[in-house]
This record gives sequence, C-alpha cells and structure tokens, in this order.
Amino acid sequence: VPADIRTAEIVAVGSELLTPHRLDTNSLYLTGRLNDLGVKVHAKAVVRDDRGELAAWIRLALTRADLVITTGGLGPTDDDITREAVTDALGLTMREDGATLQAIRERFRARGLEMPAINVRQAMVPEGAVVLSNPRGSAPGLWIDAGRRAVVLLPGPPRELQPMFDHDVAPRLSGRTPPVALRRRVIKITGRSESHVDEIAQPIYTRLGDADVQVDTSILAAPGQIEIHLEGRGTDAHRIDAVLTAGVEKLASALAPYVFSDDGRTLEAVVGDELKARGWRIAVAESCTAGLALGRLTEVAGSSAWVAGGIVAYANEVKTDQLGVPAALLDEHGAVSEPVAQAMASGVRERLHADVGVAITGIAGPDGGSPAKPVGTVVVALSGPRELVKTLRFAGDRQMVRAQSVAAALDMVRRAALSRG
Amino acid sequence: VPADIRTAEIVAVGSELLTPHRLDTNSLYLTGRLNDLGVKVHAKAVVRDDRGELAAWIRLALTRADLVITTGGLGPTDDDITREAVTDALGLTMREDGATLQAIRERFRARGLEMPAINVRQAMVPEGAVVLSNPRGSAPGLWIDAGRRAVVLLPGPPRELQPMFDHDVAPRLSGRTPPVALRRRVIKITGRSESHVDEIAQPIYTRLGDADVQVDTSILAAPGQIEIHLEGRGTDAHRIDAVLTAGVEKLASALAPYVFSDDGRTLEAVVGDELKARGWRIAVAESCTAGLALGRLTEVAGSSAWVAGGIVAYANEVKTDQLGVPAALLDEHGAVSEPVAQAMASGVRERLHADVGVAITGIAGPDGGSPAKPVGTVVVALSGPRELVKTLRFAGDRQMVRAQSVAAALDMVRRAALSRG
Repeated sequence: VPADIRTAEIVAVGSELLTPHRLDTNSLYLTGRLNDLGVKVHAKAVVRDDRGELAAWIRLALTRADLVITTGGLGPTDDDITREAVTDALGLTMREDGATLQAIRERFRARGLEMPAINVRQAMVPEGAVVLSNPRGSAPGLWIDAGRRAVVLLPGPPRELQPMFDHDVAPRLSGRTPPVALRRRVIKITGRSESHVDEIAQPIYTRLGDADVQVDTSILAAPGQIEIHLEGRGTDAHRIDAVLTAGVEKLASALAPYVFSDDGRTLEAVVGDELKARGWRIAVAESCTAGLALGRLTEVAGSSAWVAGGIVAYANEVKTDQLGVPAALLDEHGAVSEPVAQAMASGVRERLHADVGVAITGIAGPDGGSPAKPVGTVVVALSGPRELVKTLRFAGDRQMVRAQSVAAALDMVRRAALSRG
Repeated sequence: VPADIRTAEIVAVGSELLTPHRLDTNSLYLTGRLNDLGVKVHAKAVVRDDRGELAAWIRLALTRADLVITTGGLGPTDDDITREAVTDALGLTMREDGATLQAIRERFRARGLEMPAINVRQAMVPEGAVVLSNPRGSAPGLWIDAGRRAVVLLPGPPRELQPMFDHDVAPRLSGRTPPVALRRRVIKITGRSESHVDEIAQPIYTRLGDADVQVDTSILAAPGQIEIHLEGRGTDAHRIDAVLTAGVEKLASALAPYVFSDDGRTLEAVVGDELKARGWRIAVAESCTAGLALGRLTEVAGSSAWVAGGIVAYANEVKTDQLGVPAALLDEHGAVSEPVAQAMASGVRERLHADVGVAITGIAGPDGGSPAKPVGTVVVALSGPRELVKTLRFAGDRQMVRAQSVAAALDMVRRAALSRG
C-alpha cells in the first residue's frame, strides 16, 4: 500500500456539543496523535444529531481528506445516528454482526445485567467495515475503507476514544502514512511580554530547519508565562532532534535569563528542584496574592520537603503582628512599598525558620489604586540567599495581576538560587 | 421583514486553530448570544486558511442555515482569506471602500504610525456589504445579505468580536428572529457528587415545562462543585420566568442544604456576603491546600473588608509556633486529625484577631497515605460562630483533592454563618 493517508478531517457528532457550555476536546487529542503520524488535520466540525446533514458532511469531507474521523453518536438511542449517516454517505447496507452483539451482551452479563433490546443497534455494522472493540464501553468503533480513503467512527467519551485510537486506529494507519517523523520541544519563559519574546525569537525560529527538517513554531501566552513550541518534521528522527536541540540552544541563549525550562518542567517544579538541591526551605509572605504563590509551589508532589509554609497578611495588623513589619514603615511608605516588602520577606523567613523568604505586596484592583501607585503596582522581595526587592507594574484584570505577581516572585527565587550556584 | 433567521452555522477560519493546542472559543460566546435571540446553532467548523475550501463551506452552510457567521481571517496578510472566500461563495465583486480605508489610516495615525501598505486589503468590501466598524482593532467586520439569508464576517480576537456582535450584529437581527424568549437559571451545589445530584434532581427537572415553555436541563461537574443549568424557551418571557422560578424552588428545596447559590454568585462571593452582612472577618489556617482557600476568597474584589489573612502551616513546627497547636496533640493524633484541625482553626482566629477561623489539614497525595488515613483524607474545622470539625474522604488526584477541600471549608463557613442568622 502506498503512503496514501496524508490529510484528515474530524467531525464531532452531538447536539449537546452545540450549546454555549460545551467544547469538543477529542479533536485536540486526535490532532496531536495524527500529527505524530505525519497526517495533517485540514478541518474539523461539530454537527447536530441529524442523519441527512451528517451524511452530507461526510461526503464533502471525503472529497478533500484522505481520512475522515467521526466522534460520538454511536450510542443505542434514536439520537445516535452516526452509523446510519456514514452508511448512507458511502452507499452501503448494514447487517447485524453476531460477534459484536455477543460481545455487547457479555458486557452487560458481566455486570449482572440483561442487555436492553435497544442495544442491538450497536451491533449493526456496514458491509466491509472492521469492528473496533471497546473494552471500556458498549459502543464499538468502526473502520470503513472507501477506495483509497477511509472513514473511522469512534465513541465520544475520551476514556473510550483515546485507547481505541492508540490500539486499533494508529496500527491500521501504519505504512499508509507518509514516512514522516515528528518531534516537539517547549521553551518556557517568564518576565517578558509575548511581543518582547517574539521580537527576539522570530529572527531565530524563522531560520530553523533545512531541506530535510521542517520546523513549525508557535508562541502561547498566559499571564506571567510565554511558551515557544517547536515542532520538527522530517524523515530522519535523529536529524530532527539535532535541528531542534540547536534551535533550543540558540533561543535559550538569546532569551536568557528569562528562560526557566526547556524540559517540560513548570516554574514551581524548577524552583522546588533548585531549593531541594541546596537543602533550602522556603517561606512566603503574601498580601495581594493571598496564598496563590504557596498554592502553586505546593502543586508539586513532595513539596513538603522544601516548603515550610507562609503568612497571608491581607490586613495591615497581620503584617505587624505575624511578620514583625514595623508599624512606622507601614505609616511612612504604605503597604505596597519596597521597605515593607523587604520586611515581610525577612519576617516570614525568620519566624518560620526558613532559609529563603519571599514576599508579595501589591494592588490587584479593581479598587485601591492611586496616581502614584496605580492598580497593577506590585512589589516582590527576597530574603536569605540574597536581599532583593523589585517594583513591577502589571497590566490586566485582578486575576491577571495576581498570576503575574506569583510568577515574578517564583522567578526571583529561581534566579537567586542559581546565582548562588 | 418576516422572522426569517432561525438557524445559524459558525465557521472559525485559521490554520492555527487546527493544532493540538488551540480551541475555538468564540463559538461558545456566539452560541450563547444567538440562543438568547431565539436562533439555534446547527453546526460549527474550523477550517484552514484556504480560499477554495472556505468558499465551498460557506456555499454549503447557506443551503442549510439562515445565518452564517465566520470568525477570523480578516487581517492584512496573505493568510487572511475570509473576505475573498465569502465574495467567491456569493459570486460578488469587491471594491476599495474610501471611508473604511480612511478609518484604518486614522487608527494608525492616532498611535503615531503610518499605515502599512498591506492594510489596504482590510478596506476591500464586497458590493452590497455593510461595514461593521471595529474600535478595538484594524479589521472591520462585514454584514452581507444573501437573499433572505445573511453572512456575517467577524474578527478573530474575542475582545474585538464580542462588542461587534453586541453592538452591530444583534441589533440587525432584531425583528428578523423568531418571537422566542429564552431565559437561563443556574443552581450551584457543593458537598454532593454529580450522580447524587442527578438522582435527586432528575425526577424534578424532567417534569419542568409545559405546552408553552420548553425547559432544557444540563448538569456540569467540577471538583467540589456541581451546577444545574435550566434553559427555558417559549414566546412569553413572564411565563418562562414563572416556570423556571418554580423549578429552581423545587430543586433548591430537594437539594438543600447543599445549594449555595441560584443567582450566579460563586461560593467565595456568597461566603463574603454572609461575612460582610454580619460584620465578621475571617482568618484561614491551611496545611494541604497551602493558600488555595485564601486565594479563592480573595478572588472577590473588595475582600479586604472581610479577610484578615491566614497562616499556611505546611511544616509541623509552623503549626506549633505560628498557630499554637500543642506539640502533644500533633504527637498523639497526627497532623491530619480532628483535634489538630480544631486547634488550627481557633489558633488562627485568635492570633489574627478574626471573628471566624477555619482550618484545612489533609493528605492530598500522591504520597503520605496510610491504611488508617488514605490519600484523600481531609479534616476541616471552624472556630468562632460555632466550633465544628468534619473528616472527609475525597477521590481524585492531588489537584482534585485540594479543590474539593477548599470547597468543603468555604461551605462550612457559609452554613455556620447562615445557622447564626
């Protein structure tokens, strides 16, 4: 068989996916796996439970794509019309499949139940179709060849769909997809805006790749974090790895010291690893972020080895009583100031007997800003390995200011740890 | 004009939306707003930047739907092909629109910039189209009548698309949509599983509605929270409101006391309102959740009026030193125990001079479990208005256990406040 499957379209079937509350996420999983096999996704759709409309969509998709995957609509009720619509689209007829019916019946019996009569529909199979068994649900999948093209019907629940794709669909595609290898790398950055990162990175990533290795780059931004995704495609996996490694090195050195990870680790995991390597424990004093920095550090399993705890000092008297910030400092400079942030960092470090103290105080908004200290003004401070303090000005709403503040504080810890070797 | 716009299809244009990392979320916003106007969405799609394929999709969509909305692909570069594809699909010709060109030029000038020559493309307008101005970006939208049907082109960025739909598209639909009114209500529940809630709610919500009012129900689950969404549809808004209000009352009384909101408020907002109404301030002592409860309470703008702060006592010596938990209690019962949780709650309340103290201590996993206290064991305690303590057992991973713990603690505060009137 020649490499005849290069492009795919995906259609999710189900009126419930056309409400304001639900998204089809199966297509993300399928796109990732298809890309890994060298197959590009050219379109995807969500259609309602309408036999005629779905059949029309399948017919059109087969004029454009080598592979059409449907998800959902394989249940036993009248709403479930995918089997029938695909059969219509391909001009096939259906028959009841004895082995499939037996398997469905067994599945009910194993749970002490009689199979409802309605489930017989799930054993209807178009002529020439291959049944894909579903150990996690009653709806079997189907693989139907249509000339050099193919239509694959998968169940909607992700826990049924994903293993069925991996165990039954991917092996059937093998040998029919282009001899393409694909590798991915991710560089994670904090402390720079998306446009800053792009300005520095663009002259580098546009020159990555060569005749043998094609490199696609995408930049994803979240509050306080930018990710550069490199996707290398070619025929020789070793050559792709070499090209991507060289690219990551160039980008990381151009963007240093803002790059905190090129191996998939989160910022909190990197901070944890640096602290653990030095035998240090951290304590955090938070005002405007009110626990979010500690919440994020402790997302790391096993973080009790390097997190002592912290004080959330939302009210000023908590800053004086629990952190020992002198009332005079608060009066003179205000709660959002460098002297107060420094006193909070050293206070939490001393009182919690930690090696590193970090503090965050700021104005997250929407209220509380002033001309001198507008909403988004945040001070982060570090005490222990070094005494550091930094005033920052963040854009965005309350949630965005808080997320960026947490990232800035964690990154201050990371950089201070690294500078101490 | 008769009510001729009853159904819609939405197509998002952009190859970047066909990667494994990106979802089209504009369609959720548009679906919600269209449903409000009585228009049903029958299909949606994501297509790549291909003029021919997009034109074919538009042609097909117009055979099925009264309204076709495209999002994205209106930028100035060669990749942006939506204007051209729609013009092809409808068999129109385009001309440069002087007023639109002038507006784009002005937009650049206001920022001290010369308009790049490439942006002239954004002023190309198909004959008969209405230009929808875009105060937040350079890409204007377009409304094109096609017989009794219509095609609307909107820009991709949500902050440009949403106001354009509300200010320019919705008013143009008015009078052309069915005389259908739609109302939504949401009931929010914590402390029960999805299957529990469904078992109690199903006999009620399946009987809601009558000949004049159709009610659709959906249940959405997140760790620590279940939502029941009711959507009522009919011709008389007052009748719909009456049916939904009766439904909400029935459901709320069947599910009491687990219902915390039927007016859209979050659990943290409800807790804040209850505290504020009583003039109480809260302090939180957290172990396994390490700041997440405080982080969630302070998501509410203005929460400094009723949040004092808290202590994150991850290490045991922080529990003794900062919260005054007797070392003997820790030795005898362990950190995850009812006596320790109670001592944490009263300790944080006293030390932070708050009216309400709440504490969370537990085993979030993946390590640290034992046969007597498996992963997922969590103790929450309250001090102040009442002295309460409760041991819970949560399923799920580290993140799910922590989220459920926070919800349980916040709900304990809510219920204690209510019981004190």
